[in-house]
Amino acid sequence: MTTSLSSAEKPPAIQDYFRRKVALVEEWLDRLLPSSEAVPSEIHKAMRYSVFAGGKRLRPIMAIATGEIFGSQEHELLPPACALEMIHTYSLIHDDLPSMDNDTLRRGRPTCHVVFGEAMAILAGDALLTQAFRTLADHGSADQAIRVRVISEVAQSAGTIGALIGGQVLDIQSEGKAIDEAQLEQIHCAKTGALIRCAVRMGAIIGRASERELAQLTEYGQKAGLAFQVADDLLDATASSAELGKTAGKDVAEQKATYTALYGIDGARARAAELCHDAIEAAKRSGRETAVLEEMARFIVERRS
Amino acid sequence: MTTSLSSAEKPPAIQDYFRRKVALVEEWLDRLLPSSEAVPSEIHKAMRYSVFAGGKRLRPIMAIATGEIFGSQEHELLPPACALEMIHTYSLIHDDLPSMDNDTLRRGRPTCHVVFGEAMAILAGDALLTQAFRTLADHGSADQAIRVRVISEVAQSAGTIGALIGGQVLDIQSEGKAIDEAQLEQIHCAKTGALIRCAVRMGAIIGRASERELAQLTEYGQKAGLAFQVADDLLDATASSAELGKTAGKDVAEQKATYTALYGIDGARARAAELCHDAIEAAKRSGRETAVLEEMARFIVERRS
Repeated sequence: MTTSLSSAEKPPAIQDYFRRKVALVEEWLDRLLPSSEAVPSEIHKAMRYSVFAGGKRLRPIMAIATGEIFGSQEHELLPPACALEMIHTYSLIHDDLPSMDNDTLRRGRPTCHVVFGEAMAILAGDALLTQAFRTLADHGSADQAIRVRVISEVAQSAGTIGALIGGQVLDIQSEGKAIDEAQLEQIHCAKTGALIRCAVRMGAIIGRASERELAQLTEYGQKAGLAFQVADDLLDATASSAELGKTAGKDVAEQKATYTALYGIDGARARAAELCHDAIEAAKRSGRETAVLEEMARFIVERRS
Repeated sequence: MTTSLSSAEKPPAIQDYFRRKVALVEEWLDRLLPSSEAVPSEIHKAMRYSVFAGGKRLRPIMAIATGEIFGSQEHELLPPACALEMIHTYSLIHDDLPSMDNDTLRRGRPTCHVVFGEAMAILAGDALLTQAFRTLADHGSADQAIRVRVISEVAQSAGTIGALIGGQVLDIQSEGKAIDEAQLEQIHCAKTGALIRCAVRMGAIIGRASERELAQLTEYGQKAGLAFQVADDLLDATASSAELGKTAGKDVAEQKATYTALYGIDGARARAAELCHDAIEAAKRSGRETAVLEEMARFIVERRS
């Protein structure tokens, strides 16, 4: 099945799968984060405010779906998967700060610093990053060497070289500048791609995939991660703030480097479809049962928020 | 030897020990941090600017001195010890931000956000925290279970409950409020104590200390950590900005909760001496050769910056 289905036409099975996994991820996040009552309660409230703002949980579900291909169990997969969501959330909190992207709306709600103040938002981000690594150390594979390998992978993907923080730096530095396709892909591979790629690799490593399988799934993650960012640029240019739950049209207003600026709407759509196709082909080459991953690649480029 | 020696009278052996360890820590920090040339270079410059601003390297030296008691080797001890220094530095960068303590001077130089801007300072702090965990995953004990245990300890000590970030939250919340001795100790144990205690525990865990030895050295770390903060309060109240390399007298100006505010200068000096004594006694009870740790406890309360 390579024909794209719009979100309304998705087979009920995959919709159900997503719904069940979102619920599971949120149940584990609740278990893994400090309680709102724990002292100092203000920071735990700020952490939970942003974590439970209703994200798509794409990264943890990617990790879970990949691990399940290899028969990994819930207690091995869910905590490291949730650690990725904590890191994703911390990066959003810090990116939204006044000195960064200065965003006041995220997932349809005021951003963390608007509600809790700037100091508390910085600390809540710090605390989510720290709690992610505590989670990765305290839970996951029973094999301690696998746990260490996963921690190293996550730290690398959240770091500065071809990774999360480095992508944000390049993004800030490119504002208002003319950049070419290679530079744009470098920024997006780092800023969004690294953590999505890491989610897939995490699942494969916990599932003890062979090196060959890991390489093929890494390529899937790489393409899917880039597709996600192209789709994000398209949504920023075509959807309303109400649909997105965040300020639409900001990229253009701030002269950010985007795929739509570089290729136009139609060109960006073609690029997203190409990346989605490449991701699906890479997943299939593993010879494993990758139907869920294929469906997720389609979801990534067809989503409406 | 329980008589205190002022810094000028310290036996040459311990002075030499400190000097050698500072050089070793800085050599390893240089090796463990991304190069200034690596893209995006600006953030690596910001990270290195703050890490190589000439700190005392107290936390890594505490970890090394403790590990050496148990015969641990340089390659096992230095990387995790340096990870602690990265975390300490990240916490200083974020604490100094305009929305937090708004400090412009640190270790005699303009703070990170003054030189690199607020966005880059936030990201440099994030990156040091992330690089610390990468270092802890990629280096340290050959025993992967010990590596995981150390990562968990560090994440806990850098977290929100009785730990680094939580202490900063409580400190911010206590500004301008009357607080009692128990509350003050809670703040200081968390904000400064947790990471110093963690340094000692890290060394003992890597050295495979027995549970009994670990408990005694933990008590040493706890007391030494609190002594450090009492000494810090004393220095803020009695030393000049030039001596400290940071803005002196800020605690009083901002009505911060301090030991000197609560006990007066003489009372705080007595408390520091008592904590130093307790730390030394706890170390001795381990029955191990703890002369260096004892000397470090004395240094902590007698230092002049």
